[in-house]
Amino acid sequence: MTVRFGLLGAGRIGKVHAKAVTSNSEAKLVAVADAFEKAAQDLAAAHGCEIRSIDEIEQASDIDAVIICTPTDTHADLIERFARAGKAIFCEKPIDLDVERVEECLGVVRQTNATLMVGFNRRFDPHFAAVRKAIDDGEIGDVEMVTITSRDPGAPPADYISRSGGIFRDMTIHDFDMARFLLGEDPVAVTAHASVLVDKAIGELGDYDSVSVILVTASGKQCLISNSRRATYGYDQRIEVHGSKGMVAAENQRPVSIEIANGSGYTRPPLHDFFMTRYTEAYANEITAFINAIAAGVKAAPSGEDGLIALALADAALRSVKEDRTIRV
Amino acid sequence: MTVRFGLLGAGRIGKVHAKAVTSNSEAKLVAVADAFEKAAQDLAAAHGCEIRSIDEIEQASDIDAVIICTPTDTHADLIERFARAGKAIFCEKPIDLDVERVEECLGVVRQTNATLMVGFNRRFDPHFAAVRKAIDDGEIGDVEMVTITSRDPGAPPADYISRSGGIFRDMTIHDFDMARFLLGEDPVAVTAHASVLVDKAIGELGDYDSVSVILVTASGKQCLISNSRRATYGYDQRIEVHGSKGMVAAENQRPVSIEIANGSGYTRPPLHDFFMTRYTEAYANEITAFINAIAAGVKAAPSGEDGLIALALADAALRSVKEDRTIRV
Amino acid sequence: MTVRFGLLGAGRIGKVHAKAVTSNSEAKLVAVADAFEKAAQDLAAAHGCEIRSIDEIEQASDIDAVIICTPTDTHADLIERFARAGKAIFCEKPIDLDVERVEECLGVVRQTNATLMVGFNRRFDPHFAAVRKAIDDGEIGDVEMVTITSRDPGAPPADYISRSGGIFRDMTIHDFDMARFLLGEDPVAVTAHASVLVDKAIGELGDYDSVSVILVTASGKQCLISNSRRATYGYDQRIEVHGSKGMVAAENQRPVSIEIANGSGYTRPPLHDFFMTRYTEAYANEITAFINAIAAGVKAAPSGEDGLIALALADAALRSVKEDRTIRV
Amino acid sequence: MTVRFGLLGAGRIGKVHAKAVTSNSEAKLVAVADAFEKAAQDLAAAHGCEIRSIDEIEQASDIDAVIICTPTDTHADLIERFARAGKAIFCEKPIDLDVERVEECLGVVRQTNATLMVGFNRRFDPHFAAVRKAIDDGEIGDVEMVTITSRDPGAPPADYISRSGGIFRDMTIHDFDMARFLLGEDPVAVTAHASVLVDKAIGELGDYDSVSVILVTASGKQCLISNSRRATYGYDQRIEVHGSKGMVAAENQRPVSIEIANGSGYTRPPLHDFFMTRYTEAYANEITAFINAIAAGVKAAPSGEDGLIALALADAALRSVKEDRTIRV
Repeated sequence: MTVRFGLLGAGRIGKVHAKAVTSNSEAKLVAVADAFEKAAQDLAAAHGCEIRSIDEIEQASDIDAVIICTPTDTHADLIERFARAGKAIFCEKPIDLDVERVEECLGVVRQTNATLMVGFNRRFDPHFAAVRKAIDDGEIGDVEMVTITSRDPGAPPADYISRSGGIFRDMTIHDFDMARFLLGEDPVAVTAHASVLVDKAIGELGDYDSVSVILVTASGKQCLISNSRRATYGYDQRIEVHGSKGMVAAENQRPVSIEIANGSGYTRPPLHDFFMTRYTEAYANEITAFINAIAAGVKAAPSGEDGLIALALADAALRSVKEDRTIRV
Repeated sequence: MTVRFGLLGAGRIGKVHAKAVTSNSEAKLVAVADAFEKAAQDLAAAHGCEIRSIDEIEQASDIDAVIICTPTDTHADLIERFARAGKAIFCEKPIDLDVERVEECLGVVRQTNATLMVGFNRRFDPHFAAVRKAIDDGEIGDVEMVTITSRDPGAPPADYISRSGGIFRDMTIHDFDMARFLLGEDPVAVTAHASVLVDKAIGELGDYDSVSVILVTASGKQCLISNSRRATYGYDQRIEVHGSKGMVAAENQRPVSIEIANGSGYTRPPLHDFFMTRYTEAYANEITAFINAIAAGVKAAPSGEDGLIALALADAALRSVKEDRTIRV
Repeated sequence: MTVRFGLLGAGRIGKVHAKAVTSNSEAKLVAVADAFEKAAQDLAAAHGCEIRSIDEIEQASDIDAVIICTPTDTHADLIERFARAGKAIFCEKPIDLDVERVEECLGVVRQTNATLMVGFNRRFDPHFAAVRKAIDDGEIGDVEMVTITSRDPGAPPADYISRSGGIFRDMTIHDFDMARFLLGEDPVAVTAHASVLVDKAIGELGDYDSVSVILVTASGKQCLISNSRRATYGYDQRIEVHGSKGMVAAENQRPVSIEIANGSGYTRPPLHDFFMTRYTEAYANEITAFINAIAAGVKAAPSGEDGLIALALADAALRSVKEDRTIRV
Repeated sequence: MTVRFGLLGAGRIGKVHAKAVTSNSEAKLVAVADAFEKAAQDLAAAHGCEIRSIDEIEQASDIDAVIICTPTDTHADLIERFARAGKAIFCEKPIDLDVERVEECLGVVRQTNATLMVGFNRRFDPHFAAVRKAIDDGEIGDVEMVTITSRDPGAPPADYISRSGGIFRDMTIHDFDMARFLLGEDPVAVTAHASVLVDKAIGELGDYDSVSVILVTASGKQCLISNSRRATYGYDQRIEVHGSKGMVAAENQRPVSIEIANGSGYTRPPLHDFFMTRYTEAYANEITAFINAIAAGVKAAPSGEDGLIALALADAALRSVKEDRTIRV
């Protein structure tokens, strides 16, 4: 079986997914849609696919699945439309910035029994996936404490900040999903502290750039998350899981791993510059997982519910900061 | 000038300090006191010093300074006695488990203008000291976020737990001091979560074995602390400081740093088995710092106030757990 | 300009190069030839190219360049044919196992003024290329001593050994090229020692499985090479260059870089299992370099002469072992 | 039993050994001798021992063992004198720069049945000793290939060079001993190449500063040695042993193991500045081993014969360079 794809959105991440589809022998990229015509043309030319409108893709009998890479505020509407159209749906996170809107949207997904997978790409990073596998294989016994470090090389532009839903919904949300992926239990308490240390403009927009979070599960497992919009040395992405029998950790990745030694010491080059290069394999692997789930007729993960829970944790973290207390979820 | 020492307590840590004194050319170990006669005899024989009672040491004109390594519940009394006797005092942490008793004791120290240094040995670890030096040298710009990981190889016996004052006052207190040492600002908010994941007996004694803490300073700097009474791979002691210009970290230390590679991968031996081997240099360095401070006639650090503040943070952390909220300090 | 390719040989490495060509927007894979029809069909289907005979490719006006991935004993003949046909040629190493035959072949290349690039893929590994760049950038001053470690995960089958030309021409030849790439001077003396330590069958075929080589240049620069047909922990590929101002090294690469810690210590997974996964990027980069050289109309490197010199060093190493003395070259 | 020591030579290494003796509860430093009176006085004052002449130490009934740290050209004479005087002898390497003189001296040691240990300190480094232990424990199967890297931070003064016997007898000799320690077989062939790349003055004295050596044993095991009188990044001391089942390596040691990350990458401080700080533990451990051997009445290792064989390998290496061929030993 070949899964036939329509791609909605031909921007930066759309291009990444298009490449993942066309290099997968079980998949075919049939058409791309983008409001910005030049973007659609370039992508279509690069991959030898058609340009169609979203309506045409919705009604197409030669398309089985869509990948939604359009702006966030269109995600929930598109998911509902394509769920009703009987297409399998991969949607970039988040489904929406509003929990109620997400719940409404997931209601439609359930009614239509649609396949929906949400783009928490980090689960598919080979190193993080290997951490999870080590846990599943019993290498560290029962999981007790998780530490997640996630620092962006630099703050995004003010324009992006104002549309992002804030650092918890935009950035920490990935760590909330990763925490759930690794803890094996849902958090029941969220405590967050947030400051503006990197860029005052972020604070003027009502957002934060430096946050610390503790998550606790019903059985007392704990997760520490450390986020910053600043890391001069590159995109800092680490996880560490402690269990009853041991510890498993995934260290940072480097594009070039040489070391130069001289009178100043031993120096290795900086980390990847950002997520597009750091998570190249993860993006390819997540589309592969989506294709495999469709081909096998099984539920795709992470699901819409996974997206919802991560968003709810982000909301709880923000309330924790605003109300200066631990939020029970 | 040679600083002449009396040692109070000839137990495990007393032996370590005796060695630091006798191998320092600016210091001399004159006498040791210990209620357990055999311990005093062995130490006196090993270092060629006298055995005296605490009273004799208090009144001795040939002793300038004392090192207090007796049980915790004797610390405050001994500090007061030796402060009044005009001796310089090095006291193992904590001064007392009760904040009011510590304040009272420090009142005597102030009145008598005594020199008092508290044994937060980690400040003197060459690796942690180098982290602090990197900060002081401006290598990472303004400090923004600190992460401290501290895991014991195993839980102490129930008997110890019940006298310890609980994990925050016994174990995390070192991290509270290290946080202050690195943040360069005092925390104003403490949020802690605590669980019993390692040993139910600890829970039955009303204590915890796994804790996560967030400290926040007035300017919004944050510190994450992760503690566990379990680490199968050895004594896990790491710090990481992020600043506006970069990051500085001190990794774990190993007694033997070989690596064996075979079909299972690359394996390095476990970490040090506990603090006595991990902090060998730190113990020697702190006594050297104490001797140097006396010789130079300057204030010794960490001071009694440093001990008090760390204890107050420990109390706040415990209240945070009990009351399930952030405590302002 | 789009460079139009014919691929000769659809085996394991042919597939790798086909992928590199088709994913390069400046290149197009027009046709593939393989004596084994099924291999040609699969590759043609995967990449949407034609199947042609070698004769047809030789005479094709719609093909600018060929990639030769056929068995070694056909390389020299094919290079001569395609040089005369006016095609640019990329040929897997070695050109031939016989120095005289290589010289003869390169004579034809010179006469026809053909573009010829030889597949010493390691020069294009991003980590090794970064080592070279550090040297070129003056980071370590004048190069003085080079150490190259190259160990295969396991011995090849006897059948391969007997056709390989022996370990020096088959395996060490890559290190000879890397030595020249890094030393910046040609070796003038070769001393080699060789043993059979891994597999007696290799010895029975007159070959060796464990070799140590010292190369010395006219100015006294030295290179140490260590090779083995055994490495239980994966494909061991390291280089280290010492210069007057410092050192630069490229460490081994791992497919998954997690670390698991427990009572036995800290364990990282094994290295890549062999060259196909270790040098994925290198293979893509070398074809890119070939395409760029054609497009720019400049000489491609490594050249046929580079192939010849590496082979001559391999021959000298073998003579050094046989005659138990240093060979001047 | 307490082993009573006389120390011959109160220079840099004499002080190190004095400290090792006085901090060992099974040993006592009775007296020191040094032609330079001030040096003897300082050492005697620091350790509370007597100053005696060499003659007095030779005839002393209260001295069981001597440590010889005098200039190299006095070693053989002193060994003979103290062997005849019935003292156990620890002598810094080398016994003499001349093989015949060493053989003569060892003849006296044999006749007198004296205990003689030669100061190849590296065998007692905890990391190198752990490598040997891993081999003995069968962790890597049969040893096949050894690589030893040894680079000094800088070239010694011309004055030292001219008395040193040349780089092979002064510096590489440690690696020859280490090779034997790890190979478990004596080398039968030595090939060396040597250049002057660091300091022309060294060449003018007839010595070299950069050498590469291959040792081969009767069964074909190989050892590569790389030496330089230059390493801008500190004292570079590494070993790596490959066997039939795996590999074991000891990496470099650092006095401070922090890491600073910023836009230029990740930087760790330089290595130890030289052997006095790098091999602190090794020096203490070797004296402990000597004391233990005397106390237990067993043969001390490394023996005089170990010193002789290492010197013979150094001579062979020099001949290999001079005659440009492999030397059989």
